[in-house]
Amino acid sequence: MKYSIGLDVGGTNIRGAAISIKGEILFKSKLATNVSSGRESVTNNILTLINSIITHMKSSPISVGIGVAGLIRGETGIVSESPNFPDWIEYDLKTTLQTSLNLDLLVENDANAAAVGEGWLGSAKEEKNYCLLTLGTGIGGGVVLGGNIWRGVDGMAGELGHINIYPEGRKCGCGNRGCLEQYASAQGIVKSAIEAFPSKTLDNISAKDVFEMAQKGDSAAIHILSDAGRSLGIAITDLVNILNVRMFIIGGGVAGAWDYLIGPIKEEIFTRAYKVNRENVVIKRALLGDDAGIVGAARLAIDRAE
Amino acid sequence: MKYSIGLDVGGTNIRGAAISIKGEILFKSKLATNVSSGRESVTNNILTLINSIITHMKSSPISVGIGVAGLIRGETGIVSESPNFPDWIEYDLKTTLQTSLNLDLLVENDANAAAVGEGWLGSAKEEKNYCLLTLGTGIGGGVVLGGNIWRGVDGMAGELGHINIYPEGRKCGCGNRGCLEQYASAQGIVKSAIEAFPSKTLDNISAKDVFEMAQKGDSAAIHILSDAGRSLGIAITDLVNILNVRMFIIGGGVAGAWDYLIGPIKEEIFTRAYKVNRENVVIKRALLGDDAGIVGAARLAIDRAE
Repeated sequence: MKYSIGLDVGGTNIRGAAISIKGEILFKSKLATNVSSGRESVTNNILTLINSIITHMKSSPISVGIGVAGLIRGETGIVSESPNFPDWIEYDLKTTLQTSLNLDLLVENDANAAAVGEGWLGSAKEEKNYCLLTLGTGIGGGVVLGGNIWRGVDGMAGELGHINIYPEGRKCGCGNRGCLEQYASAQGIVKSAIEAFPSKTLDNISAKDVFEMAQKGDSAAIHILSDAGRSLGIAITDLVNILNVRMFIIGGGVAGAWDYLIGPIKEEIFTRAYKVNRENVVIKRALLGDDAGIVGAARLAIDRAE
Repeated sequence: MKYSIGLDVGGTNIRGAAISIKGEILFKSKLATNVSSGRESVTNNILTLINSIITHMKSSPISVGIGVAGLIRGETGIVSESPNFPDWIEYDLKTTLQTSLNLDLLVENDANAAAVGEGWLGSAKEEKNYCLLTLGTGIGGGVVLGGNIWRGVDGMAGELGHINIYPEGRKCGCGNRGCLEQYASAQGIVKSAIEAFPSKTLDNISAKDVFEMAQKGDSAAIHILSDAGRSLGIAITDLVNILNVRMFIIGGGVAGAWDYLIGPIKEEIFTRAYKVNRENVVIKRALLGDDAGIVGAARLAIDRAE
């Protein structure tokens, strides 16, 4: 059976799957990333996982797609920088892997891969124009226009977590202030919680704790999640006015607080966006969970090979 | 000689030109719009101007392109709403004109047309990816991706004047609060001036007055223009992070205050945008002035006819 391998190289695990060209997940596997062991060791772990999938499948894939968090320089497959891998600076992951694997290979930003995955088998099926926002520790983004990932001139488009919410707001890891990520990611929710509950610190509260407090009816926790939703609504309004896309897919762990987020998201868009642009806006939860990136990476690899 | 007619239907004048397919402006003409005389009368004025250009040229154009401020529903040429023409609600301008003119005709948002114009004969020549911001009474925007205007799903993309700057900021005509337009348009600069100089009112200060005060060294006026530049820098940072385009063209009357704007614009982008995305950003002043829209409308008409 013709298949491709999709990989998601995360900070904790490298996850991979063999996926048929029709979109069936044939086999899944994972391996610890071991970031602390350094670049060469992580690269070897990637190769080990690919080879173990090939061994299991008893045939070679037509291509391999690899999703990595960070800034990927377009089609070169060079990882310019990655939040998960401090020692990957202008790291030519693609060429390095290709010298060991005689396979067609591509490297893609993990959020872009996830956006393609949701468009192939998930929430954005049949959609040609949509944005994906992945609410994890940070916020990843993918912009699909006319059926293709919009990568921008340097392959760096879609940094949706860094849309301005409050120009003088919280300091962000990207160097800016008041980015969406500072309010609607797990990290942002924790910061809101520390502001709301002065006895809490980074070590003794998590976004999940806030969610569980909200479920027990704690009004401050509900307010924190509602503010996260409002920030998302403001950022989506920008995207609606700039791009006039209709569909927004929201994934990642924080999307688990959907019931607390979706009302404020919609309210902000309805209050703020240009009337004609907002008329047909649809906000959906991502369907594929952690598999979106793997599925999308495989799909990009299939498209490239065919 | 093969030529098209480009028109810019503004609130005060309808301006038009015959432009050769090589980009030579062969003949220019204008007529008062007379908005207050109503939709039919304005439509007749448009027809009169087109016919007078044809008479002068002694031959028919291959096509006609018309730029109008407002929301144009994609390729249909229906004006959904226009700030200049309160009675143009879902007005089918294209069909109306075509029943009187036996010519290939298109209607485009004026800022989109201006973006195309600057890309053909102006500041963005040879560029495939750029945004235009036109700082007039309000702020118009055009987004060019891969050499084409990105119109969005409903033809409503590029509302760059309504990018969020301050979520709880000044009330905007679009229904939102804190839009770029409220700080960096002529209207926004006047609002800043009224805040800074409590003795001033809408009737006794204009954006031009602020500019002239700045030129005389008034520090409050310089501060107002610098704040307008900062807001532009914040909005451009969003566009840099979302779209990863490198070139931004700034036009419109307020761009006359360039020397006061450009420093703060660049400073904000440099402080705020993702490093890799901002590396190659270029901010340029529009070159074609009031002709950008006419030139772009003609170019779109030529592309369509050929």
